[in-house]
Amino acid sequence: MKIGVLTSGGDSPGMNCAIRAIVRAGIHYHHEIFGIYRGYAGLINGEISPLSLRDVGNIIQRGGTILRSSRCKEFHTLEGRSLATAQLNKWGIESLIVIGGDGTFNGAMALFQESKIPIIGIPGTIDNDITGSDYSIGFETAVENAVEAIDKIRDTALSHDRVFFVEVMGKNSAALAQRIAICSGAEMAILPNKPIPYQEIDTVIQRGLKRGKTSSIFIVAEGHVSGRAQEVKDETLKRFKIESHVCILGHIQRGGAPSTQDRFFATQMGLSAIEEMTQQKIPFPLAVVVRSAKVTIVPLNECLQKNMNASEDFAKSISITSI
Amino acid sequence: MKIGVLTSGGDSPGMNCAIRAIVRAGIHYHHEIFGIYRGYAGLINGEISPLSLRDVGNIIQRGGTILRSSRCKEFHTLEGRSLATAQLNKWGIESLIVIGGDGTFNGAMALFQESKIPIIGIPGTIDNDITGSDYSIGFETAVENAVEAIDKIRDTALSHDRVFFVEVMGKNSAALAQRIAICSGAEMAILPNKPIPYQEIDTVIQRGLKRGKTSSIFIVAEGHVSGRAQEVKDETLKRFKIESHVCILGHIQRGGAPSTQDRFFATQMGLSAIEEMTQQKIPFPLAVVVRSAKVTIVPLNECLQKNMNASEDFAKSISITSI
Amino acid sequence: MKIGVLTSGGDSPGMNCAIRAIVRAGIHYHHEIFGIYRGYAGLINGEISPLSLRDVGNIIQRGGTILRSSRCKEFHTLEGRSLATAQLNKWGIESLIVIGGDGTFNGAMALFQESKIPIIGIPGTIDNDITGSDYSIGFETAVENAVEAIDKIRDTALSHDRVFFVEVMGKNSAALAQRIAICSGAEMAILPNKPIPYQEIDTVIQRGLKRGKTSSIFIVAEGHVSGRAQEVKDETLKRFKIESHVCILGHIQRGGAPSTQDRFFATQMGLSAIEEMTQQKIPFPLAVVVRSAKVTIVPLNECLQKNMNASEDFAKSISITSI
Amino acid sequence: MKIGVLTSGGDSPGMNCAIRAIVRAGIHYHHEIFGIYRGYAGLINGEISPLSLRDVGNIIQRGGTILRSSRCKEFHTLEGRSLATAQLNKWGIESLIVIGGDGTFNGAMALFQESKIPIIGIPGTIDNDITGSDYSIGFETAVENAVEAIDKIRDTALSHDRVFFVEVMGKNSAALAQRIAICSGAEMAILPNKPIPYQEIDTVIQRGLKRGKTSSIFIVAEGHVSGRAQEVKDETLKRFKIESHVCILGHIQRGGAPSTQDRFFATQMGLSAIEEMTQQKIPFPLAVVVRSAKVTIVPLNECLQKNMNASEDFAKSISITSI
Repeated sequence: MKIGVLTSGGDSPGMNCAIRAIVRAGIHYHHEIFGIYRGYAGLINGEISPLSLRDVGNIIQRGGTILRSSRCKEFHTLEGRSLATAQLNKWGIESLIVIGGDGTFNGAMALFQESKIPIIGIPGTIDNDITGSDYSIGFETAVENAVEAIDKIRDTALSHDRVFFVEVMGKNSAALAQRIAICSGAEMAILPNKPIPYQEIDTVIQRGLKRGKTSSIFIVAEGHVSGRAQEVKDETLKRFKIESHVCILGHIQRGGAPSTQDRFFATQMGLSAIEEMTQQKIPFPLAVVVRSAKVTIVPLNECLQKNMNASEDFAKSISITSI
Repeated sequence: MKIGVLTSGGDSPGMNCAIRAIVRAGIHYHHEIFGIYRGYAGLINGEISPLSLRDVGNIIQRGGTILRSSRCKEFHTLEGRSLATAQLNKWGIESLIVIGGDGTFNGAMALFQESKIPIIGIPGTIDNDITGSDYSIGFETAVENAVEAIDKIRDTALSHDRVFFVEVMGKNSAALAQRIAICSGAEMAILPNKPIPYQEIDTVIQRGLKRGKTSSIFIVAEGHVSGRAQEVKDETLKRFKIESHVCILGHIQRGGAPSTQDRFFATQMGLSAIEEMTQQKIPFPLAVVVRSAKVTIVPLNECLQKNMNASEDFAKSISITSI
Repeated sequence: MKIGVLTSGGDSPGMNCAIRAIVRAGIHYHHEIFGIYRGYAGLINGEISPLSLRDVGNIIQRGGTILRSSRCKEFHTLEGRSLATAQLNKWGIESLIVIGGDGTFNGAMALFQESKIPIIGIPGTIDNDITGSDYSIGFETAVENAVEAIDKIRDTALSHDRVFFVEVMGKNSAALAQRIAICSGAEMAILPNKPIPYQEIDTVIQRGLKRGKTSSIFIVAEGHVSGRAQEVKDETLKRFKIESHVCILGHIQRGGAPSTQDRFFATQMGLSAIEEMTQQKIPFPLAVVVRSAKVTIVPLNECLQKNMNASEDFAKSISITSI
Repeated sequence: MKIGVLTSGGDSPGMNCAIRAIVRAGIHYHHEIFGIYRGYAGLINGEISPLSLRDVGNIIQRGGTILRSSRCKEFHTLEGRSLATAQLNKWGIESLIVIGGDGTFNGAMALFQESKIPIIGIPGTIDNDITGSDYSIGFETAVENAVEAIDKIRDTALSHDRVFFVEVMGKNSAALAQRIAICSGAEMAILPNKPIPYQEIDTVIQRGLKRGKTSSIFIVAEGHVSGRAQEVKDETLKRFKIESHVCILGHIQRGGAPSTQDRFFATQMGLSAIEEMTQQKIPFPLAVVVRSAKVTIVPLNECLQKNMNASEDFAKSISITSI
């Protein structure tokens, strides 16, 4: 079978591990694998070429995606998707594996409905905010990158008795901010989609000061507009005379060698996608997901929403362990 | 309640995160927490002191264990354990949390049977070989450390067209070797407790050479005596004239800042241990384990064996993705 | 002799290595070493305590400063410095080693002139902008931290064909921005204290595009107000329709385990300060500096200015190697 | 001009930075640059191809060498070098830049004497043991890799009160062992080419025990046969009943992203080689070296010996700062 693979949306570390597994397992099961470059934009334009075993040699440790990625507005239109279908036909590509977030998955669903091409989605976004999967490729690396950075910021916080508001990625998703707060030992995760709990911030800082803790670190989810940490800094200064510093982690969260967790699940999910494509046991379109630590195949339509829920357990855990 | 905590057996990164969570949550729930130093040896000798909130400040990112650790033969004897019980009584310690591997857990079981003191075990060993838990503290960091080292060795392997046999820890356990092989993109994991598959090693190398792959990396589980990688090197030279290099990762696998996975689960398990100690819903002795990615409380006797099984799925995955 | 040691101004990685060397060498040469906490502020307030061999055990790899630091306005006044002198007399401290930047050194000079206490300065600032020394503690680690972060940003730049403006520290000093640009392979270092060369930025981007290079990274020295990278982004969009992203590295540049270069020179400079204090060959006040890769003792007044010169050789090197 | 470039001998991190600078600067100055693969072996076999700007894109952060490397016995013979000269003539290559250690430089000198081709050597070996240059590419990264590993080993040493003998690379050279000892805070560097100072080792351990220091780390230079650390362990057990652990760092010292120091000097040296090749001011053969922290051009014959001297100053520094 001729199988196409593309990465779409924000790049996330571990995408290359999935591509590697897809190419290697694809060739093992006697398929031909075609790389589609720059996501749906490249599909529409026919930026396509076959991938060999060697093309994916020595990429398991590389961040980003060798297939490159993009966000493509044209693919939101019926016309754009028709061009995509035409390219697939032209190249003889019989099935498609797409790696990305909920936007990518919704695009895949629309393409499937119109073209009937067998499609499998693999969750790849550092936000880990896709319904239907406990995990998406890149999440653990993004957490690692952020926590490593905060370990460094803590050196200065401790040396100078400072309060830091550290802004992390995750527009709508609480997952990144909460996980980073637990793993960095921060005082609190200030979540997106919720009012900023100013009173609580002040309480935590005052409680710390009372027991001799002169430095503290708060994780601020960026929300819809980057710069939210600056807002928190300005407002806490105004309301409570709290002197603080801001650090915006930005794109360093997205890059770098994938963590082993990401390498592991990306490899297993890529492999699983090819095995399902080979056996075709369940009606398409599908997604490869992680549930209860196991890689599983589920209908794609279980994975089309954004999961924005914060965990109350985690909030409690952060609060108790940072006293 | 007065609760003692100790770490025993080989140190593993993340133990400090568990200790931090235990102390913080313990104080949150109005207990007194006592640190017992150097494992069971220190318990027998009364190397004990109370732990405050500040004692566990700024340790979430530290490898090793602030309580230190040891392997204690005396605790294998009834006499040794009687001395331990006497110390607990002397200090008024009413319950005990022990962090370690299967040896630590068996010691805890014996102590419980004789002293009836409420005990909870938390799995802490880089080998991840305790029955009853999918995960033990330190495993992911050990995998990270090994994979980072292999990423470096690969630079030389590629530059010099070389075969490397990389020896990793895990005396009886296949878990480390297999996970490291998947995440580093190695050709094969040579498992402990099994004959070395020389013919297969040669086949893999020849297959690689045929398609122009002039370097390769094999993961060798150390088995009972360190030096197994050297044995593989010598024998493959003798049998197949394969020139190769050996690298023994050794103790660098054990140390360093815990990975976020270890920080996360260690924190959640420490917290859970204190919550169970506070509520005492289930008869002791107990263990806090990870099953299907969830932290859960189970009877300690489900966790007393070594899990030495290799995964056939993982072996297949390594073989397919390294072609 | 009773020797006091303090760190002042912005913390920089490697300060702990210098403190460790001072304490160890001090005790080796039969001195008593006193730690003065929070820089000149702590000196004025008498936040002082003796340091033992064990106080500096296991700190060689720690970022920040165990003596903590501050910027102290009171020390700019004669009255503040009189209080400091009174504290030194009260504690019987006979000589002083100060680690910090040009502000710290100017404070030391003023204190010497009024109190005649033997003083040695050690350059410690990530900006590497002290006249009289080729090197100051923390510089190489700051470069390492920035370059590691840019290695990650490059993954996304390559995956998405993007232009990034990366803002780095160094208010007046070009040294950080230029070194980071050379080591990260960036297109250009946009220096402080100079107009932003918009036309040149556009030329470099267009040149890259012409030869198929669709991503590029520019280093922007923060200058006097953080946010300069945003200004460059806004203006290049307005003038040349260049779409770009901004990343502000901020405090992650200051923290983390010191690089080996910083550990090495900080250790040698600490040692050298104690040896000079012991032998007292040259009239005080003094500074320990690095010149032509050698640790040397010079009069403190050679080190009181800020060195803000950019290197034309480095600018040329960046331009040639990034074509 | 047509300029060839090759890397030879053990790979060292930063070689790629030099290759990048040579290609970029070469093209800037209107030369054609040819990559010669696998060192002198590839030169003899004509494994040669032109290098473009893009071939060296995104390699500044890669360990190893994209040109690969080898140790070539045939090049020690007149016949081998005649074949090399013939290849240079066949490809029209008019001058040669070789990156490697003293073996590589001696080969270059012999080739020059026979072929009169303009040759420039760039020191590239992690051992930093070439006379005539204070620095060779890869040294600082090797020190970083070793020190990072020892930071991890220290976690276990402290947790278990252990003595570790850590074996590092450097067959004849003391430079690596001493620098690593200073930067890791080790007790002592046991040098190559000298008897092992058993009595001193015991003295240091006993001194530490007396003041409550229960763990210690010794750096052992591998010397001519790897396994020297094991010898030290066995002998100290026999003589003084010292229980200890061995760790052999091996090839992890050679790999990984180059440190900023290596990126910086490798870039400057590559650039300097091309500028000298362009201007041809000094009679060939030449070497680009670092002296007193400056990149300079010197006659190649100043760089043909191995520098095996240990520094007494460094030995004293290690001894004093580890008390």
